[in-house]
Amino acid sequence: MKKTYLASLLLLLALLSFSAPDSSLRKVRQYREAHEQPLLAEFMQLLTIPNVAADSAGLRQTARFIAGMMQKRGIKTQLLPATTAGVPPAVYGEVRTPGAKRTLIFYAHYDGQPVNPAQWAAGLSPFKPQLMSTGLGQGGKPLPLLQAGEKTDPNWRIYGRSSSDDKAGVMAILAGYEALVQSGQRPSVNLKFFFEGEEEKGSPHLSEIVEGHRALLASDLWIICDGPVHQSGQKQVVFGARGDVNVGLTVYGATRPLHSGHYGNWAPNPALELAQLLGSMKDTTGRVTIAGFYDDVIPLTPLEKQALSRVPNLDATIQQELGFARANGAGQSLNELINQPSLNINGLRSAQVGTQAANVIPTTAEATLDLRLVLGNDSERQVAKVVRHIQRQGYFVTSQEPTAAERARYPRLVRVSPQTGYNAERTPMDLPVARSVVAAVQRTSTQPVVQLPTSGGSLPLHVFKRIGATTLTVPVANYDNNQHAENENIRLGNLWEGLETMAAIMQLQ
Amino acid sequence: MKKTYLASLLLLLALLSFSAPDSSLRKVRQYREAHEQPLLAEFMQLLTIPNVAADSAGLRQTARFIAGMMQKRGIKTQLLPATTAGVPPAVYGEVRTPGAKRTLIFYAHYDGQPVNPAQWAAGLSPFKPQLMSTGLGQGGKPLPLLQAGEKTDPNWRIYGRSSSDDKAGVMAILAGYEALVQSGQRPSVNLKFFFEGEEEKGSPHLSEIVEGHRALLASDLWIICDGPVHQSGQKQVVFGARGDVNVGLTVYGATRPLHSGHYGNWAPNPALELAQLLGSMKDTTGRVTIAGFYDDVIPLTPLEKQALSRVPNLDATIQQELGFARANGAGQSLNELINQPSLNINGLRSAQVGTQAANVIPTTAEATLDLRLVLGNDSERQVAKVVRHIQRQGYFVTSQEPTAAERARYPRLVRVSPQTGYNAERTPMDLPVARSVVAAVQRTSTQPVVQLPTSGGSLPLHVFKRIGATTLTVPVANYDNNQHAENENIRLGNLWEGLETMAAIMQLQ
Repeated sequence: MKKTYLASLLLLLALLSFSAPDSSLRKVRQYREAHEQPLLAEFMQLLTIPNVAADSAGLRQTARFIAGMMQKRGIKTQLLPATTAGVPPAVYGEVRTPGAKRTLIFYAHYDGQPVNPAQWAAGLSPFKPQLMSTGLGQGGKPLPLLQAGEKTDPNWRIYGRSSSDDKAGVMAILAGYEALVQSGQRPSVNLKFFFEGEEEKGSPHLSEIVEGHRALLASDLWIICDGPVHQSGQKQVVFGARGDVNVGLTVYGATRPLHSGHYGNWAPNPALELAQLLGSMKDTTGRVTIAGFYDDVIPLTPLEKQALSRVPNLDATIQQELGFARANGAGQSLNELINQPSLNINGLRSAQVGTQAANVIPTTAEATLDLRLVLGNDSERQVAKVVRHIQRQGYFVTSQEPTAAERARYPRLVRVSPQTGYNAERTPMDLPVARSVVAAVQRTSTQPVVQLPTSGGSLPLHVFKRIGATTLTVPVANYDNNQHAENENIRLGNLWEGLETMAAIMQLQ
Repeated sequence: MKKTYLASLLLLLALLSFSAPDSSLRKVRQYREAHEQPLLAEFMQLLTIPNVAADSAGLRQTARFIAGMMQKRGIKTQLLPATTAGVPPAVYGEVRTPGAKRTLIFYAHYDGQPVNPAQWAAGLSPFKPQLMSTGLGQGGKPLPLLQAGEKTDPNWRIYGRSSSDDKAGVMAILAGYEALVQSGQRPSVNLKFFFEGEEEKGSPHLSEIVEGHRALLASDLWIICDGPVHQSGQKQVVFGARGDVNVGLTVYGATRPLHSGHYGNWAPNPALELAQLLGSMKDTTGRVTIAGFYDDVIPLTPLEKQALSRVPNLDATIQQELGFARANGAGQSLNELINQPSLNINGLRSAQVGTQAANVIPTTAEATLDLRLVLGNDSERQVAKVVRHIQRQGYFVTSQEPTAAERARYPRLVRVSPQTGYNAERTPMDLPVARSVVAAVQRTSTQPVVQLPTSGGSLPLHVFKRIGATTLTVPVANYDNNQHAENENIRLGNLWEGLETMAAIMQLQ
């Protein structure tokens, strides 16, 4: 009851603070409006540098470019290497504020998801950023580069890999800092900056970097700038994130592709076996049927439940926009469902389809699964449940390419390749520093800030937790940014509002 | 009983004819042995010309090259166009034999299955034919081009698209004719030649060409030179072929790819839906569970059943070689199973897998199915059964890209794209001209010729049937030729034996 009362009081305070922009915000905004052209030019340059995991040279170049952006802004900068060789370094920066009692560290990541340029729309390319008049789905048309003195429209977008996820985070933080100090203001807290280069790969070396620089990274709070704002367009503060682990599956058939006429009905078809295996993992409502899959889950606290009940429910609108007739989850809302563990098929492949298809029995069939975890789940335990389920379907599970002896012995044979995963984390919603951040963000918006107990997406928050740090996620991207897919984009209005959000947090009260 | 008696008598006669090569065969063999280098050089040249359906220029070039091969051998040649424009022409040729009472027409096809060069083994490429010391799986090593006077080893292979399927047919027929007449012999029958360019596409215009040239193509028997000899290496005469029809399936999810964290558990995943749909089509023994799938089948005649019982059963050996532990079919033999209709998944695709995979909910998931038909099945009726099954799983089936209204209305939405298919055909096993062909083939081999009521593979025999023609298939390729897949190859021993088979049939008694 006490917590509910406190939450109501906080909501009331938040509502009371809806008002005309305060003078600090006005100055930041004026500065940005006067400098859109150079800010955009710099951002476009950042987007041209390839930043996929497979391109370590590109990642290093990205890190150096960001270090340059920081130095240009007078931020004391250094690259923080992992102890493992060849890992893209984190880019670190620091600004001391005389007399400040608190230290905030701003996190974003500069690496992006893998790209398949062939999937991008005509005229678009992952590393040739393109300004567009609006979203592709709304009939967006290409625009020329912004000229000096020209102003942007908030509905314009930039298309390119990481335009949202998460170079937008890097840009919002650094441009927010620039706008704050160049408009004659100063931070209220000590600032640190930490930009990671392996987030999309599951941050396999983040703990090495973080634990190797504990003293340097000491802070009261990490502000994680990643992910989208609420689908309503309202700004959002997120108190936690789901954990994540990927699992690759390869089912094996004959050692060579076979003519489907001469061997069909007789030689086993791995595409069929994979289909039946995947089909057995969920029911028709999308609920996972793997034994114990939903065990371990730690329920939401009353405060978190209450916050969740206040999150706007836009399911019907989003569903309409996304063009499907029935959601999974047997009537539960999107907000409820992202507070549960999930199992998603990221992709399937076996031989060829369409005009490339040949009349063959494929030799293998592959799938990549993505398991999201909530508080209480453990990534290895969750993968083990999947493996046990596969074994119960009669499969021999191996982690290697099967040997000839294994092929001869086991009628059903699957290679399971789990990647390194990590668990979910949640920061308590009543933590004072967290309340201050919510208030700071609220000062930049006339709409109520959405407070989400957990994000559907994942962040390596466990790494920060291990050095005793507290985290809060403050995203900037538009929700329809196509992150992780082709045609990724950022809405300019979101980039500029994100800049204002970051500047406001830097003046935390 | 009468038929059984007749068959036994025929078998006895066939067995009696095992003997040292007769003089005709000896002459043909000597000619070939003396001319391996130019024959091989010509064949390699034929294999360099791209012959996939998507490359109509390549197909036309292939047709012209074959016409040249025929003219070089003194065969009166012409290209037979379809009435539809842009269709690769059939290559026709004719040799009149004074006093001959029968006319045989030799069929092969010069087009090949689609290729994906990336799937071919290192050093191999679909249209850069490569001579190898044996099969890849047996440790084959590349060999230089044959020099004049050099002799080949029967275990050598040539790797390249259509090296088996079915430029080997074209080559065996034309080289067989050459060896016959150049060794001072003459055919016993009138000869016609007909080489098709759309077989791998399902022969959509073959009937146009055949029906447009009925008089020209009049014959007592079509000899279809396509497919592999028996897995035992024994020569084979096949009295029929399964019909075939391909069906493309595309299941639809949201209109744009979604972040699997922010939307997982809520937005439907088309890869999962496709998996469940395909999984519902067969049981775990590989038997099709679609209602009525095995109805319509006309049983084998007693003569056919008896022939089938005499076909060597090499299932255990082949299974061991192919490296799988359990065949489909609940214990039935490969020979029994290819006399039943089949449903095969040729390929699957949804988004990306492995290192290319991103954490997304895919927008679509695709599969290509291959349905093989036996006598009694009708291709359209068989596809209709599949469609009804899909509808029973709750799907709205469309033949077009779904409209926004359809997406909004139907929770399960699939596009079904059946291609034009054709039905199975079988020639009666006791037909006199067929018996003569079996005897001719038997004269070239010390092993019993395998007589198969039907082939597992498919041929557009219905087109010939429609002009009243009788067909018999006499294949030449090795069974492990990887036809329809990467690393397609022909064993040279098979090519040379095929040449002898064709020459012997041209001297039909």
